[in-house]
This record gives sequence, structure tokens and C-alpha cells, in this order.
Amino acid sequence: MLIKIPLHISGLWYPIITNNPLTTGSIGAGINIALYLTAKLRNTEKCGIILNNEEVLKDHSQTICGKLGANLYVDEKSPISLGYGFGVSAACLLGLSLSSLLIKNNTIEKATWPAHIAEVIYNTGYGDVIAEFYGGVEIRVKPGPPGIGVVEHIYPGRKIDLIVSILPGREDTPKMLKRISRETYDLAKKLVEELLEKPSVEEFFEKARIFTSKIFSYDSIDELLSPYRSKIIGYFRKKQALTLWVEKEWLDEIYSYLNKYFLTFKTWIDMYGVRFENPP
Amino acid sequence: MLIKIPLHISGLWYPIITNNPLTTGSIGAGINIALYLTAKLRNTEKCGIILNNEEVLKDHSQTICGKLGANLYVDEKSPISLGYGFGVSAACLLGLSLSSLLIKNNTIEKATWPAHIAEVIYNTGYGDVIAEFYGGVEIRVKPGPPGIGVVEHIYPGRKIDLIVSILPGREDTPKMLKRISRETYDLAKKLVEELLEKPSVEEFFEKARIFTSKIFSYDSIDELLSPYRSKIIGYFRKKQALTLWVEKEWLDEIYSYLNKYFLTFKTWIDMYGVRFENPP
Repeated sequence: MLIKIPLHISGLWYPIITNNPLTTGSIGAGINIALYLTAKLRNTEKCGIILNNEEVLKDHSQTICGKLGANLYVDEKSPISLGYGFGVSAACLLGLSLSSLLIKNNTIEKATWPAHIAEVIYNTGYGDVIAEFYGGVEIRVKPGPPGIGVVEHIYPGRKIDLIVSILPGREDTPKMLKRISRETYDLAKKLVEELLEKPSVEEFFEKARIFTSKIFSYDSIDELLSPYRSKIIGYFRKKQALTLWVEKEWLDEIYSYLNKYFLTFKTWIDMYGVRFENPP
Repeated sequence: MLIKIPLHISGLWYPIITNNPLTTGSIGAGINIALYLTAKLRNTEKCGIILNNEEVLKDHSQTICGKLGANLYVDEKSPISLGYGFGVSAACLLGLSLSSLLIKNNTIEKATWPAHIAEVIYNTGYGDVIAEFYGGVEIRVKPGPPGIGVVEHIYPGRKIDLIVSILPGREDTPKMLKRISRETYDLAKKLVEELLEKPSVEEFFEKARIFTSKIFSYDSIDELLSPYRSKIIGYFRKKQALTLWVEKEWLDEIYSYLNKYFLTFKTWIDMYGVRFENPP
């Protein structure tokens, strides 16, 4: 049995911190893409996550196994590595946490809670767990994991052709979050409210660029994209994750262009979130 | 563009009535099956629902178009008709209500609200809208439509082979609901709490039978099923909807047996709820 988890790029966020990790999280919005982390339970003798053949997130894993009261050791594969802004840590932890459903009765939603708790405790993400669980283009209206937090979804209306690139450089999430000022979060809050008033994918891309340009540099991206600017419907970056929504006719050409510079993927919107697949 | 909505059979329910239809609904549990109502927007000049070539739910439709501030006329198909306990009214109304996404910006969740409101106002269902929206084997833990109510899901763990039959007779939902006593609802409440403690499909079937046997007669069903009793893992009826979970090896034989008496379908669990499909 394989657990498939879409990767998630947040475009708007502001943290809500309480004294309980289950009511802590972020209000915001983001996009789930049809690039998936897959997780497979290997054994129940030790606790840990092997991502692309390397052990990762050891402290997080110990916290999750502790919460679950069970050892789970999972094998995971992801087309994109940890730390670039694609919510891979949340996907890894969801893979571990949801594997517990194979050995003990729990609701699917509550089985995600240890993953959300670990993300909050180690400051690696505040909204990716709930976003990835439900998929789609999501607006997080109440913080917390599935069953506590609330997401609403934007209806795309047409096929959204996406290109994602991994920009050079690296900054870990706790460090990145410290750079964001109160004023920038107030802007995020205002943009989320406006997005809820007029929820569309166009508005999401526009607002995500406005917000993230307060945190990340767009200079070299704007320059790089300038030859194709009129073929790109929207774009934004979060950390090293560059997301472009492009005209279908230009998908291949822009993909080839960006892939010369960065590791790049053609993708689209994942509409279904976490799924469980039986082996053939 | 086609909207696909799974049919839903509730097995446990107790109503929570408030002075606001959006916080009114039911706590309970039920199963979504891989039999779908499909809806297609025909035009925006009048308001109504054509189900299997017949206009249905006229008052509900007027209420929904009023809430939406738009006329929507939808063509719908369903393998099962209204009034037998498969949540077809909620599916019809969801088809109408969600069609509004084609003509105006709204979140997908909020686009379901008029359907839930109409169900509550006309007393035709309290939990089917949220159940069908999210799919799966669901436990409704907080009443209301998607975005307000909360559902959690039972992880099935293996392929669940289902047979559903439509029993003879008919009783409309408002009338059926009136027959249920306070004590029976107290039982439902206790069973839902127990199911949340130990969420499994086995427990769901068991508890659904215990609860519904206070409302519907099982005498003729028990007799009819007696030759196959040991091959049936679980079964329950809600109104005219008889749902059986059977051993895979006996699926065809039990299906043929029941289909001699009633309109019968082989099916399984729908795991994804409402989906939007583009025409090929």
C-alpha cells in the first residue's frame, strides 16, 4: 500500500500561534501540484523516514512515533528534496504519520495530527499538512490540522498548466520565517481576505507575488522571464520554489528555456490531496 | 464540464437544530458509494433540476437560485431515483449549487451552502451534502455544510465489496424523521462516540444496523439473507437502501440472488467525493 501526497507551495501565509500545536497553524493560501511524495511502510521495529535513500527529519520522526505510541519506518520517494519551499517536510511527516493507519484504528484526519504537531514544534511549516491533505488551490481559513483547521478551495475552471523550477540557494524555514515583519504579515492578512472575496486562480497568483516579493528577491527572475512575460499568466516564488502558470501553447518552450538554468518540471493542479493506493 | 457526486447512505444520525441552517445539520456516520449523480449546466435563463428527464425539487431549486442570485438549469443523471435513502436529493441540489462555480467566483465549499440550506429548510436531509462532498466512509463530528461542518474518515484498509439493493416501499424523509424518538437519537449519539473511539468499517456496519433496526424492519431482510449470512461481513438498511458488505468470492452470487428480488448494484467505496470532470 502506497500513500501519495501532493507537494504544496504556499503563496500567502500568516501564523496563528497558540499554546496548543493543534490550534496553531497558518491562515493563507497555496497551490498543490501533481508532483507527489510517495510513502511505503517498511517495518514497525524502528522509527524513521528514509527519503530518496537517506534518513531525514529524525527529531520530527521521534516526536511522531512518540505521539502514535508505535514505531514506524517508512520508505519515501520525492521528485523534489527537502528545504526548497515545496512542503516536502510536511509530506514526509504525513507519510510517516498516516502509515499508522495500517496498524491501528484511527480516523484518517486524526492520523495526520502528529505530523502537524511536529511541523509546528520544529517550526518547519504551519499550513502544509492541511493543505496537502485536501489538495487543490486552497485558502486556509482556520489554522490547524485536518479535522480542526479549515480550508476552502478555489475552482480553477480550466486546465492550469504549471511549470515549477528550483531556484539556486537555500534558506531553512525557521530562518526565513524570522525575516518576515509584522507589516508583511498584515499585508498577507489583507490579501487573504481579498482573495476570499474574489476567489480565482488569477487572483491567487497575483496576490502571492505581491506578498512574497516582500520576502524574496524577484530581480533575477523578472529579468530571466522577460522574453516570455506575455505568455505567462501568473508566477510567484516561495523560497527556492518558482511557480509559473503559462499559456498552453507555450508550455514546452518555456519549460525547455527554464530547464537550461534550473531543475524544472511541467505539472498541473492536484485536485484530490492525499490518497491511498493499493499495490497492483 | 460534468460534476460527479457520489451517492451516500447514512447509517447513524442525530439532528442538531439551531436557528441558522448553516449551523444546523446532523452528527452521524455513513458510506459514500461509487454510484454517481452527474450534473451538467444546460443554461442560465431559467432555474431548475432535470433528473433523468423529469423536473424535480422545484421549491428547493427556487431557494438555491435565490441564494445564488442566479438562474441555473441543470441536466442530471442518477442510477437511483429520489426518495429511497441514497442521498439523491442532496446530490441533485449539490449539482445545481456547484454549477454556480461556472458563472461566478466563489470557493467550492461556499458554493455548496445553498444546497445544504435547502435540504435543512425542506427537511430532506441534514448531513448528506457534507458527506457527499468529502466522500469515503465518514463520521460527521460537527454539523453544517463544507467549511462549517466537520467530517472525519474511516480508513478502509482493504477493498470493500458492496452490494446495494432498493427495497420495495417508500417513505419520505420528513415523515421518516418524525418517527424517530429521543431515545433512539440518544442511542445514535452513543454509537457515534464509540465509533470515533474505534473507527473501522466493521464497527460502522455493526453500529449502523443496531441504530437503524430501531427505525426500520429487518425481519424480511434477515430471512432473505439467511442462506448467505456467513458470507456477508456487514449489512444495514436506511429507508429503502439496503447495503451489504460481502466476501469478494461471493460478490457475484449474492448480487444475482438479490437482483432477482430488487433492483441491485455491485459497487465499492467512493474515496474522493465531489469531482469536476472536463469533457473529453
